[in-house]
Amino acid sequence: MSQLYSSMKPTPMLKDELDIVIPTIRNLDFLEMWRPFFEQYHLIIVQDGDPSRTINIPKGFDYELYNRNDINRILGPKSSCISFKDSACRCFGYMVSKKKYIYTIDDDCFVAKDPSGKDINALEQHIKNLLSPSTPHFFNTLYDPYGDGADFVRGYPFSMREGAITAVSHGLWLNIPDYDAPTQLVKPLERNFRYVDAVMTIPKGTLFPMCGMNLAFDRELIGPAMYFGLMGDGQPIGRYDDMWAGWCVKVICDHMGWGVKTGLPYIWHSKASNPFVNLRKEYNGIFWQEEAIPFFQSVTLPKECDSVQQCYIELAKLVKEKLGKVDPYFIKLADRMVTWIEAWEELNAPKGTETNAPKGKDEKVTE
Amino acid sequence: MSQLYSSMKPTPMLKDELDIVIPTIRNLDFLEMWRPFFEQYHLIIVQDGDPSRTINIPKGFDYELYNRNDINRILGPKSSCISFKDSACRCFGYMVSKKKYIYTIDDDCFVAKDPSGKDINALEQHIKNLLSPSTPHFFNTLYDPYGDGADFVRGYPFSMREGAITAVSHGLWLNIPDYDAPTQLVKPLERNFRYVDAVMTIPKGTLFPMCGMNLAFDRELIGPAMYFGLMGDGQPIGRYDDMWAGWCVKVICDHMGWGVKTGLPYIWHSKASNPFVNLRKEYNGIFWQEEAIPFFQSVTLPKECDSVQQCYIELAKLVKEKLGKVDPYFIKLADRMVTWIEAWEELNAPKGTETNAPKGKDEKVTE
Repeated sequence: MSQLYSSMKPTPMLKDELDIVIPTIRNLDFLEMWRPFFEQYHLIIVQDGDPSRTINIPKGFDYELYNRNDINRILGPKSSCISFKDSACRCFGYMVSKKKYIYTIDDDCFVAKDPSGKDINALEQHIKNLLSPSTPHFFNTLYDPYGDGADFVRGYPFSMREGAITAVSHGLWLNIPDYDAPTQLVKPLERNFRYVDAVMTIPKGTLFPMCGMNLAFDRELIGPAMYFGLMGDGQPIGRYDDMWAGWCVKVICDHMGWGVKTGLPYIWHSKASNPFVNLRKEYNGIFWQEEAIPFFQSVTLPKECDSVQQCYIELAKLVKEKLGKVDPYFIKLADRMVTWIEAWEELNAPKGTETNAPKGKDEKVTE
Repeated sequence: MSQLYSSMKPTPMLKDELDIVIPTIRNLDFLEMWRPFFEQYHLIIVQDGDPSRTINIPKGFDYELYNRNDINRILGPKSSCISFKDSACRCFGYMVSKKKYIYTIDDDCFVAKDPSGKDINALEQHIKNLLSPSTPHFFNTLYDPYGDGADFVRGYPFSMREGAITAVSHGLWLNIPDYDAPTQLVKPLERNFRYVDAVMTIPKGTLFPMCGMNLAFDRELIGPAMYFGLMGDGQPIGRYDDMWAGWCVKVICDHMGWGVKTGLPYIWHSKASNPFVNLRKEYNGIFWQEEAIPFFQSVTLPKECDSVQQCYIELAKLVKEKLGKVDPYFIKLADRMVTWIEAWEELNAPKGTETNAPKGKDEKVTE
C-alpha cells in the first residue's frame, strides 16, 4: 500500500484544463528537463518551417503536432493569418486548444533554479498567478497582496481588495535577457542573474513589452486577442509577434477590467539568438513601435464592446485607420486580425452551435 | 600616509546636498545603528508633542532640532498648517531645509540586512534611485533599466529610453509591514521577510500608498507638494499624512512628467504600533479614502500649471470643491494646503528676493 502510494504521481494543478503550446523547428530534447513538471499535461506543438521534417519528441509526453500543411488544411484560406518561419505561428496552437488555460514556452528555455538552489516549477507559479486576482487599479507596494505572507498595505482602498480577474501571467528569464538586437550588439556579455522575488500587476493604462517565451493566459477570457500577428516569411518584420499581442491584450484587458501580471516565474533562457539576424527582423519594428505604442497608449474602445472578439475587431479597424498611414503593412495586418477572429470563431463555436467547419481536434495529428 | 589615508572617512554621496528629517517624541538612540551611514549628513529633527521635554541625541551627529514652540515662532499664524501629535509634523523639516534632497525616516526603523547578510545602506540606495532616471511612460519587465546588469528589454521604445527625472524614491520595510489597523488586527503575527531585489517606477496615471517611514525626494523639484496634511491633535484623522502627500505628489509628478520609484532600499521596521490606537486614528480615513482616491485618480491639472506651487494651489481648490462635500474636514485641509504653500514660499524665497520673514535657518536651534 505504501509502495503503491509512493509510486503514484500527484495530479498537478489544472492538469485537464491547460495546454502547453510550443513552437519549434527542431527536436524537442529540451522537454527532458521539464519532464517532472510537464509530463502529465497535454502539449500542442506547432512545427514551423519545412513540414516534411520530422521533429523528435521525447517519449512519454502526450501531444498533438501541427505543421504548415496541417494549418493550411484546417484553416483553408484563413491560414493566411498564421505566420510562417516565425515563432508567431504558435498562436495557431491557442486557436486549436480546447482548454481554458494556455502556457507557452520556447524550446530554448530550461528549468531555472531559485536562490535556494531548488528547481523552479514555472508552470505551477503561472497557474497560481492566473488563479489569484490582480490589482490593476491601485499599486500595492508589497507587490502581490494575495501571496503567502503578504497583504494590502496601509492606504490601499478596501473596496478594491477583491481585485480583478487575472487574464495573463508573464514570466521572466534568467541568464539571457530578452533584449532587442541593438542592445544585444552593444552588450553581448550581459546576463540576468537578478532573481526578483515578486509577482505584480501591471497597472491599468500602462503598456508593457510582453515576451512570448514564458507566458500563460486564460484562453477562455483573452484567447481571441492573443494573435501574434503577421511576421517572418514574406513579411517586412519579425520578433514583434509577442509585442503586438501584448499591446492588443493589455488594451483589451484594461477595457474589460482584467489584470495582467508579470514577474515570477523565471525560466533559464539558454542561448542568445544572433543579433545580426535579429536586427534584420526588427529593423522596421524599431521605427514602427515609435508610432504604434503611442497609438495603443491613446486608444479607447467603445463602451458597447463587451466581448474580446468585438474589442479585437474594433482594434483592427483602428489599426487600419491610424497605423495604415505609417506603413501599408498595418493595413494587411489589420485585415489578418479580422481573419484571425473569423478563424477563432470557426474553431471555437459556442457549444451547441457546431458548424461544419473543420475543427482542430478532428484534424489533429496525435501520436 | 597609509595610516592617515585609512583613518579618513570617504565622503558619502550628496553629503552637502541632503538633509535627513526625523520626527520624534523620544530619545534618538536608534541613530546609533545608523551612525556609519548618517553621521556625515545633517539632521533636521522635528520634536512632536510636549516641547518642554528634552530629546537625547547621540553625540557626534550634526543636527538642528525644532519643537512646537520653534514651529509657532518661525511660522507665526501659518503654523496652523503643521500637525501636532502626529508624525505629519515632519513636513516642517522639509520646509526649513535648504538642501536639494530630503531623506526622512522614522525612529523605530533600523538597518536591515540584504540576503547576503550585509547591512543595507538605505540612504545610498535612495540617492542612487533619485540620481538615475525613472520610466513612468512604459513598463520595463526587468524593472530598473538603469541598474547594474540591467537594461531595457526588447520592445521598449527607443525614444523613451532617456527616461524621466526622478522626484521620489519610496523605500520598503522588512519585519513589520506597513499595514492598516484592520489588517494588523486580523494578522497580528504577519512579518515581511520577502526581500524583493528591485526598484521600479510607478507608472504614470497610477496611484500608490506612499509610506513616510523610509522616503527620499528631490526637495527642489517636489518639496512644495510634500505636505503631510492636517492630522493628529484636534483633527478627526491620523495615519493618513503620508498617504495624502503620496496622492498629491503622484498626481503632480504625473502632470510635470517626473518619475516616482518604489522598491529598494529596505529598512528594518522594529515594532508594530498599537492596532487599537491606530483604528481610532484611521477610522475616518478608511471611509474617506474610498472617495479621495477616485478623486485623485480622475483629477486633471490645467496645462497652464507649470510649477509645483501652482499645481498644488489648483489641487487645493479642487479638494475643497470635490471632497468638501464628503466632509467639512476637507475644506479645512484645503485651506491649510494653501497656508502650507504660503509658508513654503516665505521660507524658500528665490535667491535675491529675500523677505523680512523669519527664516528657518536663522531661527534654528543647533547644538
